[in-house]
Amino acid sequence: MFHKVLIANRGEIAVRIIRACRELGIGTVAVFSEADRTALHAQIADEAICIGPAKTADSYLNIKAILAACERTGAEAVHPGFGFLSENANFARMCEKCGVTFIGPPPSAMELMGDKAQAKTTMKNGGVPVIPGSDGVVKTLEEALQIANEVGYPVMVKASAGGGGRGIRQVKNDSELEAAMTAARQEALAFFGDDGIYIEKFIEDPRHVEIQVLADNYGNVVYLGERDCSLQRRNQKLIEECPCPIMTPSLRKAMGEAAVKAAVACGYHNAGTVEFLLSGKDFYFMEMNTRIQVEHPITEMVTGIDLVKNQILIAAGRHLDFEQEDVAMRGHAIECRVNAENPEFDFRPSPGKIQGLHMPGGPGIRIDSAVYQGYEISPYYDSMIAKLIAYAPTRQEAIMKMKWALAEFLVEGVDTNIDFQLNLLKDPNVEAGNYDIGYLGRSKHLNTQK
Amino acid sequence: MFHKVLIANRGEIAVRIIRACRELGIGTVAVFSEADRTALHAQIADEAICIGPAKTADSYLNIKAILAACERTGAEAVHPGFGFLSENANFARMCEKCGVTFIGPPPSAMELMGDKAQAKTTMKNGGVPVIPGSDGVVKTLEEALQIANEVGYPVMVKASAGGGGRGIRQVKNDSELEAAMTAARQEALAFFGDDGIYIEKFIEDPRHVEIQVLADNYGNVVYLGERDCSLQRRNQKLIEECPCPIMTPSLRKAMGEAAVKAAVACGYHNAGTVEFLLSGKDFYFMEMNTRIQVEHPITEMVTGIDLVKNQILIAAGRHLDFEQEDVAMRGHAIECRVNAENPEFDFRPSPGKIQGLHMPGGPGIRIDSAVYQGYEISPYYDSMIAKLIAYAPTRQEAIMKMKWALAEFLVEGVDTNIDFQLNLLKDPNVEAGNYDIGYLGRSKHLNTQK
Repeated sequence: MFHKVLIANRGEIAVRIIRACRELGIGTVAVFSEADRTALHAQIADEAICIGPAKTADSYLNIKAILAACERTGAEAVHPGFGFLSENANFARMCEKCGVTFIGPPPSAMELMGDKAQAKTTMKNGGVPVIPGSDGVVKTLEEALQIANEVGYPVMVKASAGGGGRGIRQVKNDSELEAAMTAARQEALAFFGDDGIYIEKFIEDPRHVEIQVLADNYGNVVYLGERDCSLQRRNQKLIEECPCPIMTPSLRKAMGEAAVKAAVACGYHNAGTVEFLLSGKDFYFMEMNTRIQVEHPITEMVTGIDLVKNQILIAAGRHLDFEQEDVAMRGHAIECRVNAENPEFDFRPSPGKIQGLHMPGGPGIRIDSAVYQGYEISPYYDSMIAKLIAYAPTRQEAIMKMKWALAEFLVEGVDTNIDFQLNLLKDPNVEAGNYDIGYLGRSKHLNTQK
Repeated sequence: MFHKVLIANRGEIAVRIIRACRELGIGTVAVFSEADRTALHAQIADEAICIGPAKTADSYLNIKAILAACERTGAEAVHPGFGFLSENANFARMCEKCGVTFIGPPPSAMELMGDKAQAKTTMKNGGVPVIPGSDGVVKTLEEALQIANEVGYPVMVKASAGGGGRGIRQVKNDSELEAAMTAARQEALAFFGDDGIYIEKFIEDPRHVEIQVLADNYGNVVYLGERDCSLQRRNQKLIEECPCPIMTPSLRKAMGEAAVKAAVACGYHNAGTVEFLLSGKDFYFMEMNTRIQVEHPITEMVTGIDLVKNQILIAAGRHLDFEQEDVAMRGHAIECRVNAENPEFDFRPSPGKIQGLHMPGGPGIRIDSAVYQGYEISPYYDSMIAKLIAYAPTRQEAIMKMKWALAEFLVEGVDTNIDFQLNLLKDPNVEAGNYDIGYLGRSKHLNTQK
């Protein structure tokens, strides 16, 4: 086992990882920027090293400074958390070159999953359902017409180098196709310098359902149930729950086995998440996140399995100490992301000093946080105050619990989205589990906390 | 279901009960003394009523004021928590007379279990193992010799009206018996005005293992595993754990079934705890606590069943919605009582203002507390800061988790027993689960936090 692990991150996930190390008897090294001198992660770690100025490019993304901190402290492994360098294959490779274990998947798997087109092909070949459409780039209108009619309208024309909603057009019939292709190509060329486009079936109002997997270095891969993260605002997850309200045992098994195939297909080790779009009983591979995720606690609550400890154990060469049939789901967990932001002003961040703080507690409440009364939320980083997790035997009870927990959550000195989250949970469709990834976008009345 | 419940208590248990009511959609009324105007329970309840001065006799034990508060607010039921009026059969009767449901057992069961001799006889007749000894009071030396030889030395001579260690003598052989009887009689007469004595086998270094039961009003009684509360200092529980480190499935079944018999024998409804002395594979009824207990959270963590919500549901006339075979134990939970007290000065309470406060959080940590930064711990009541509960798949992991959680727990402004608790958990015998109720008393080096 490692004697010392360096945590190349900040905030609640750094605190989370430090605690996991403590439980495994491993020494911890925190790194912090000049803006984070009083941050909790830097205070509670065994050692803490300043790695640069506030700007992330100079500190939390500063590979040289982080590797130097490893050398200086004798850390044998690095846990990257999420964000920052967590999906940077180059960083993972440089760690290995320096003799430091990167706690995460092999760089090759990170790279493969980072390239959308390559990932889709690999998944398709590996037997994972993907959204029907063209194999790679479409060159001619004739080709496009043929594929669109094969998969059935509506279809999406997408820039293959795309992202962020750019270079995307929805097409309802043959007559619209040519114009859409031209428009998508022009936009793609303008934004990405690459006019390649491809065609996919349009999936109407799907849910975002992701499967957690754990894979050790010896070919053992398990899935740990799903998380429904459909409640999103502009692609930002707001509330996640486990299990998915409409999940069935047979669908879970099918999605779980597909996720295991995805992990096997890309030679995956460590913890990862395979994201699917779920429409009716059909599900399609969207992408794989090659790191621990923000919303991992809800899976931990329901399965009783500590994902971060398992990440460390796997990276240290341990075998998974359980098998698929040992994974039992009990109860229901919901996570709300409590942020310092103002929903009245388009959710703009609200950095500043937390003058007063009282967090809820008691049965079934878990709080992953790195703030304290007197802590100053920095404008340099994300505005998270806490991940508030409510766990209860049933979904209905978990929602009731989350409501009182949000009502008890007191933050003075900065604006928060607490009332907004409370409003969301009071919405009849949310209460009924009747939502999809477009629900918040269509529900303008929910985009305020009044 | 009730529309409104009054909580006749204060501190963390009042907060705990308010939260349970919230989850059931029930309105809450807090009562508070003049010293508790800024107490959390009074702040978070839907309504809060002052019931008198700081002195408990004038407020939290003031039956008239509490029943008047029920009438004034229209509360249909009272939850007494623990301590204060929770085991006062007279209070329960007066509630019923006023048309207010007492959330607890029938007064008759409370009275029966409150009388030690009567309880023991009822248990014996009900098939619950009791400590071998005389049936009631022993009159003559001949009688005493016969019983002592039947049960085997060493035996205890005990005052039947006794308590607090008064009027008790240990006897190793026939020749010591007469002198011990005389001494116990004299002490009993002096302290209790009653020289009745009885004889019991001396149980050497037993563990304190208690069984949680839930009984509805329709004859359904289930046991929810055990709690080991052997780590005590002068009869005050310090650390509790579930499961008991030396428990086996067959012993749990035997003790659980005995606890169910105990509940049936006294006509019990609602939540209760049957306390046993465990010595080897033998266990003996000690007493039944006819209320929710301080240490109930560890059972909730391991069984996933909310005891306080079940108390309310049972009192409202609901059937238990699960059966014995549905009760599954998963993982291991430990509770440490974090108090404002000074272990260097014989654990004297340390009331005062909490100037700084940071409580741990994250996976498997539950905190039941009613304090906040700026809160003033009153000298009038108990000095509890928080119940810190650590839950993990295994005992070893739960101990590791509790250690970091205690290390992260920061309280400024008052003395605490946090370092003392940390020292306890580092003791090799405690770590190995190798302790009994006398362990702390014998381990003088543990009675300090240095």
